[in-house]
Amino acid sequence: MVSQKMYKLGSQRSEIRELFEYGLKRKAEIGAENVFDFSLGNPSVPAPECVKDALADLVENTDPVALHGYTSAQGAPDVRKSCADYINKTFGTNYTGDNFYMTVGAAASLTISLCAISEEGEEVIVLAPFFPEYSVFIDQAGMKSVIVKCREEDFQIDFDALKSAINEKTKAIIINSPNNPSGAVFSEDTIKELALVLEDAQEKFGKDIYIIADEPYRELVYSPETVVPFIPNYYANTIVGYSFSKSLSLPGERIGYVLVPDSVNNWQDVYYAVCGAGRALGFVCAPSLFQKIVPKCIGKTSDISIYKKNRDILCDALSEYGYRVVQPDGAFYLFVKAMEEDSRAFCEKAKKYELLLVPGDSFGYPGYIRISYCVSTEMIEKSLPSFKKLSEEYK
Amino acid sequence: MVSQKMYKLGSQRSEIRELFEYGLKRKAEIGAENVFDFSLGNPSVPAPECVKDALADLVENTDPVALHGYTSAQGAPDVRKSCADYINKTFGTNYTGDNFYMTVGAAASLTISLCAISEEGEEVIVLAPFFPEYSVFIDQAGMKSVIVKCREEDFQIDFDALKSAINEKTKAIIINSPNNPSGAVFSEDTIKELALVLEDAQEKFGKDIYIIADEPYRELVYSPETVVPFIPNYYANTIVGYSFSKSLSLPGERIGYVLVPDSVNNWQDVYYAVCGAGRALGFVCAPSLFQKIVPKCIGKTSDISIYKKNRDILCDALSEYGYRVVQPDGAFYLFVKAMEEDSRAFCEKAKKYELLLVPGDSFGYPGYIRISYCVSTEMIEKSLPSFKKLSEEYK
Repeated sequence: MVSQKMYKLGSQRSEIRELFEYGLKRKAEIGAENVFDFSLGNPSVPAPECVKDALADLVENTDPVALHGYTSAQGAPDVRKSCADYINKTFGTNYTGDNFYMTVGAAASLTISLCAISEEGEEVIVLAPFFPEYSVFIDQAGMKSVIVKCREEDFQIDFDALKSAINEKTKAIIINSPNNPSGAVFSEDTIKELALVLEDAQEKFGKDIYIIADEPYRELVYSPETVVPFIPNYYANTIVGYSFSKSLSLPGERIGYVLVPDSVNNWQDVYYAVCGAGRALGFVCAPSLFQKIVPKCIGKTSDISIYKKNRDILCDALSEYGYRVVQPDGAFYLFVKAMEEDSRAFCEKAKKYELLLVPGDSFGYPGYIRISYCVSTEMIEKSLPSFKKLSEEYK
Repeated sequence: MVSQKMYKLGSQRSEIRELFEYGLKRKAEIGAENVFDFSLGNPSVPAPECVKDALADLVENTDPVALHGYTSAQGAPDVRKSCADYINKTFGTNYTGDNFYMTVGAAASLTISLCAISEEGEEVIVLAPFFPEYSVFIDQAGMKSVIVKCREEDFQIDFDALKSAINEKTKAIIINSPNNPSGAVFSEDTIKELALVLEDAQEKFGKDIYIIADEPYRELVYSPETVVPFIPNYYANTIVGYSFSKSLSLPGERIGYVLVPDSVNNWQDVYYAVCGAGRALGFVCAPSLFQKIVPKCIGKTSDISIYKKNRDILCDALSEYGYRVVQPDGAFYLFVKAMEEDSRAFCEKAKKYELLLVPGDSFGYPGYIRISYCVSTEMIEKSLPSFKKLSEEYK
């Protein structure tokens, strides 16, 4: 008597969650220090000090009625202005607070954006490997996911495959760079070519096709030469979904935004539809206290040098042990080729060495595994002999 | 090229919001102290001291990775347990944390519950006067609102009207007691009769019919003799949606829960569907820091004696001036008969005296007006001559 679709979504645990629960059980059996849990993307580096200072200051010195009261549905004006100012300064744009709609994190940014542009029966392209909830959100918005695989050699877009997937029903493509799970950053060349392909398609089919840029990992890049192109500067019809979950290590607090740039065709209508979707889905406003953190902390990040160190240790060791590793430029994931075709079987074997790795099947990309390295460096160092033994099984 | 439904929801301001914006403009023109704005339901009493203490303590003494990290989707186990313990102690029930799913406030509790039980084409009964977003949420869940008017004399349920509205498509009825906008508390007799009517209907149509009890105002009652019946103790198929927005004066922080009691038919399936709906709508988890406030503050409230004082001043004065007032037992709203048939015209006249009142049309109950008395007592006292002059226009 309940919605069968919702029952299924709620009762069937994701593969990642299953593995995490297995890890909890295993840690209870043999001690947490002996299980190498690389399953979850939960930041391991604390929020920067400015978050604590801002929270303490706000709680001590702000009238509680104002501090904890409703903000307007799109977010407090000064908070939205601080987002515009930061983006303008960083990317040379010219937005105002009215281009921003504060959300309850990246997932909300996506469900709201998808619901805003949704027309029944239209299609949304996702690039594998991809965050598994994308399919859930697209389906909930009444649209259909179309999966296009990225190139194996560098996880950049395979444009032949993309062009074949675009048709008169294409409504949007979700771009997630730096990427979960591959860690790849789409290069400026990739984004320029993507813009050309989509502009051609818009002209050919006489309709707007949106890029939805899902950017929670925007600041998590590890080389000074790595540039994360700001997509609205390359393609006009881009809606940006952002979250402070990873940059400020606040994943549980649920604070982010949707940016609808002026360059979007009829941007004001799209913005209104975003407001309408936020209302219909039951969001009311983004959490008030954490909205007020934004102007005080925007542009700062957690100490991401720790993630870089983790990445380097893992990439070096895994390459040495014979794994085929594409060194990722950003986020905190390695996406490594499994040593047998069936990546689920490979991950089962890994459990013998207490390694918890997520099969690529979960991300629409079988044959690979995801290693989340947002864990302690100590655990990574301790896990290396297990990775070595696992690889030796295949020699 | 966007969803026309979402565009409409986002671009057409609600009557309440329009009035609020008019108020801002008017305050700028003649001074805030000269405008009597009774339009919004934003608590005017600060959060109890325990909230500030708990926030300061958590921020100072908790590891930030744990404090701000993801909780499980249904909420942190100790938080859910504290909700169960409090409800068990208060209402003699026997729930565990596994009956509770933490949400981003009352609106989310509703959209999640409705989405969880939704079957295309089914109907949800709402009792007028009602919170206007109910229709939006029901529509978004793919169901149809059926409006049943409450009795004018006491805003209790009109059971003849209710019985005529129930049919084979009825999936649920939303109960909001204490009520926004009438302030009425449904009596134990009302709830008992409602339970009988719904049990008969379940048997007649061979299906589950749910009560969705929307209870953000549960603790806001003003007489020791007023009892707010705990509906799951009267009707098995009750899903409770709660929010701490009003009891703890935290409306902007978005923290509440859905309770699926064991008494609900196949309660575990309903709970799974709730989890699935939370996932599909993009909620991920309720804000982590404010989840952790719950065990430290549950059962406490803001100083509601201020609301009682406001109610008493307004009820006494308005009765004296000739308004027909049903004294409300709870929440912080008065729902008063307009002095002409067209309540929108009445509210327009009120503006001449700088009184901002919301026409009952917004709540599916024309001919009445809503006065939100969650404002300063000083403003109420200063507004009385205006109410008097308004009434004199109709003599």
